[in-house]
Amino acid sequence: MKLYLAGPDVFLPDATAIGKIKQRLCAKYGFVGLFPLDNEARPAPGLLLAQAIFRGNIRMMHDADAIVANLTPFRGASADVGTAFEIGYGFSSGKKVFGYTNLRAGYLDRIQQLTSGSLNLGPDGRKYAADGFAVEDFGLFDNLMIVEALLEHGSEVVVPSKDATDPARDMTTFEECLRRISAPAMAPARSRRTSSAT
Amino acid sequence: MKLYLAGPDVFLPDATAIGKIKQRLCAKYGFVGLFPLDNEARPAPGLLLAQAIFRGNIRMMHDADAIVANLTPFRGASADVGTAFEIGYGFSSGKKVFGYTNLRAGYLDRIQQLTSGSLNLGPDGRKYAADGFAVEDFGLFDNLMIVEALLEHGSEVVVPSKDATDPARDMTTFEECLRRISAPAMAPARSRRTSSAT
Repeated sequence: MKLYLAGPDVFLPDATAIGKIKQRLCAKYGFVGLFPLDNEARPAPGLLLAQAIFRGNIRMMHDADAIVANLTPFRGASADVGTAFEIGYGFSSGKKVFGYTNLRAGYLDRIQQLTSGSLNLGPDGRKYAADGFAVEDFGLFDNLMIVEALLEHGSEVVVPSKDATDPARDMTTFEECLRRISAPAMAPARSRRTSSAT
Repeated sequence: MKLYLAGPDVFLPDATAIGKIKQRLCAKYGFVGLFPLDNEARPAPGLLLAQAIFRGNIRMMHDADAIVANLTPFRGASADVGTAFEIGYGFSSGKKVFGYTNLRAGYLDRIQQLTSGSLNLGPDGRKYAADGFAVEDFGLFDNLMIVEALLEHGSEVVVPSKDATDPARDMTTFEECLRRISAPAMAPARSRRTSSAT
């Protein structure tokens, strides 16, 4: 089973090493990890680099059986948008999508922190952040389109029992995610909440 | 031609009114606008609300011929992640994807502002933000997965000539986007840059 390893990891200065660590962990659980190494893409003649990376990632997703997404919040309250794109792309292509985060804070808390204000109940019954936009209050770890794509196949976001010391590089929840893929738990009634790694 | 209107507009307190304005503009250019009104979703028995919204949006995207995405940065440096998911989903389903923004600032500037620091050149030749992660420097408006999905079909992000006074509600670039869909310009050599609305 081939797993496309989506996430902002490719933006790390040590992305190559991180990719190898993730691939070794995949092998430990019997998987092949496909890691989209932006910084090693070499465009074919006539292709610009961004286009070559895009097409390379799309090809790699087609080659994969499932997506494992690093949903650790990135430059804002939510997951990296490139990762969100890939979850949508993979889900639409019929791949199972799995996900994990290295930071625990819930969606509502993250948005309150980002918008520096508390949430207020609107006349329509939704909660509104200080930026004037509603916040989804479904007990999900991120925007519902992301999390429901996982839940459609019975998978939940793996959340650590405490924040990782180095959230950009910690492998605890990633490995827990792989462990669950390799040995799915007997599913009880579909839980709607994120689940702890421990 | 049916257009799925993706964007964080659904989180506005006046989302219903905004949806109707967008749909009227679509009709003006001969299109049918499909607006995913989160706050009007009513789950079928046995479905939870988030799941009902997710499935409703997926169904609506299948019904659409193309996606028009509001890429105005949302709660961070990039587009709304739900919108990014939908761009990936739509692109994977073979739909053309179009996009616009109501704020002009480029990707690098937005990330510098968000991370409160300047960019530094890394030993790998990439630019790094103060958060320790590289920044894609391809002259694209957002993460390359988002923008290249548009460019694959020859479409560029429509950027306003100046910031909208009310970026959450302004319709200038949205309408310009519709105008371009209805009357595609004779394409010169594929430009790699965002293009101005005026």
